[in-house]
Amino acid sequence: MTLVMYERIGADGRRPSPFSWRIRSALAHKGVPVEFRHVRFADVETIRALSGQHFVPILTDGDRVIHDSWNIACYLEDRFPDRPPLFGGGFGRGLARLINHWSATTLGTAIRRLIAADFIRCLDAGDRDYYRRSREAAFGCTLEEYCADRPRSLAEFASVIAPLEQTLTEQAYFTGGVPGYADYVLFSVFQYARLGCPDEFLGDGTALRRWRDGLVQAFDGLGDRYPGYPAS
Amino acid sequence: MTLVMYERIGADGRRPSPFSWRIRSALAHKGVPVEFRHVRFADVETIRALSGQHFVPILTDGDRVIHDSWNIACYLEDRFPDRPPLFGGGFGRGLARLINHWSATTLGTAIRRLIAADFIRCLDAGDRDYYRRSREAAFGCTLEEYCADRPRSLAEFASVIAPLEQTLTEQAYFTGGVPGYADYVLFSVFQYARLGCPDEFLGDGTALRRWRDGLVQAFDGLGDRYPGYPAS
Repeated sequence: MTLVMYERIGADGRRPSPFSWRIRSALAHKGVPVEFRHVRFADVETIRALSGQHFVPILTDGDRVIHDSWNIACYLEDRFPDRPPLFGGGFGRGLARLINHWSATTLGTAIRRLIAADFIRCLDAGDRDYYRRSREAAFGCTLEEYCADRPRSLAEFASVIAPLEQTLTEQAYFTGGVPGYADYVLFSVFQYARLGCPDEFLGDGTALRRWRDGLVQAFDGLGDRYPGYPAS
Repeated sequence: MTLVMYERIGADGRRPSPFSWRIRSALAHKGVPVEFRHVRFADVETIRALSGQHFVPILTDGDRVIHDSWNIACYLEDRFPDRPPLFGGGFGRGLARLINHWSATTLGTAIRRLIAADFIRCLDAGDRDYYRRSREAAFGCTLEEYCADRPRSLAEFASVIAPLEQTLTEQAYFTGGVPGYADYVLFSVFQYARLGCPDEFLGDGTALRRWRDGLVQAFDGLGDRYPGYPAS
């Protein structure tokens, strides 16, 4: 029975979603065949009918329907225990969950402040209204206002990534000598920035840049398989 | 051969140092007997003569002298592999190192903004000048100026701890079902706040409060073995 992953897709085959990227990487890490099916931002009702909630990615495995990227990662680890590990045991799983939350609340917010206004151009024309409406309601201001204070957002980003940079000067991956799910979670957020705006935020020669570029090239260049940010 | 730990000690037997607390907890977790020797803030030359650098804690094991709390934790894990694990494998060790850096750069800074001016009263009278001079040089302002914008510091603290709180609503410890070194690192910073100022920053009924109070009680109430913040 082939696994099926439902994921969000942008304009012209783009794949900007960080939640998809972390699961795409986890599936490649496990070496498990998967069939991808695409949904757009506006396909809320289709997703709800499948899973009872409206977020993607969703993974199906026969009759099982798993939603929420964290639950999917845990499912893959437990379903394929003989494949390369995503967590490396209970301590690694526990700490990966903390990194997962930190990536959403702290790293994700810092990056969204830098890219939310540019990001809309990655989306299919039919999804842009939905994106703008839902995000502006959440932010309480326009996308452009949300991203207006660039010097402050860059300073906040530099502060947020400092412990990541320091760790990667001492070890190759966040999970040590080999990458694990915590790496894929963090990579997915940097990949979202890399594909979702025209700017590069990681300095040449930094440990984070080396690490991110290595993960872009992993799994036969999976991270560059889809179109980048649209040329203006 | 008994291990010896050199640690900083404050006024009237107080133990406010977060770096000592994480190692004190790690030693208790391993169940390894240790003899504690005390140094004050101003004993810089004594410490340098012992270890070639001026930070505590320092652990000695026969002829071995280990400094830097991270190195000490790794040493204990590798030296006593049959005792309860601090890291739980390579993935757990890698991620604990990230948490260690995050606790210094992000959580530690947020807490220092709240307590640095109060903290001086925990120190022996003879150490206060050294503390004030060295910290004010590092901060570029007086201790009181550093802590002046309390509403902003409280908001920053709330933002920093959000992913910690969320994780602990889902699992008992940061390393999952049992505590590990990452828990002791984070606990040590909250213990520094708990012993180093008169205020309580963790709300009643929060998961973080339950977790911290549980670790205060661990190892026969180790976290309450020394005097708290001086009564005014």
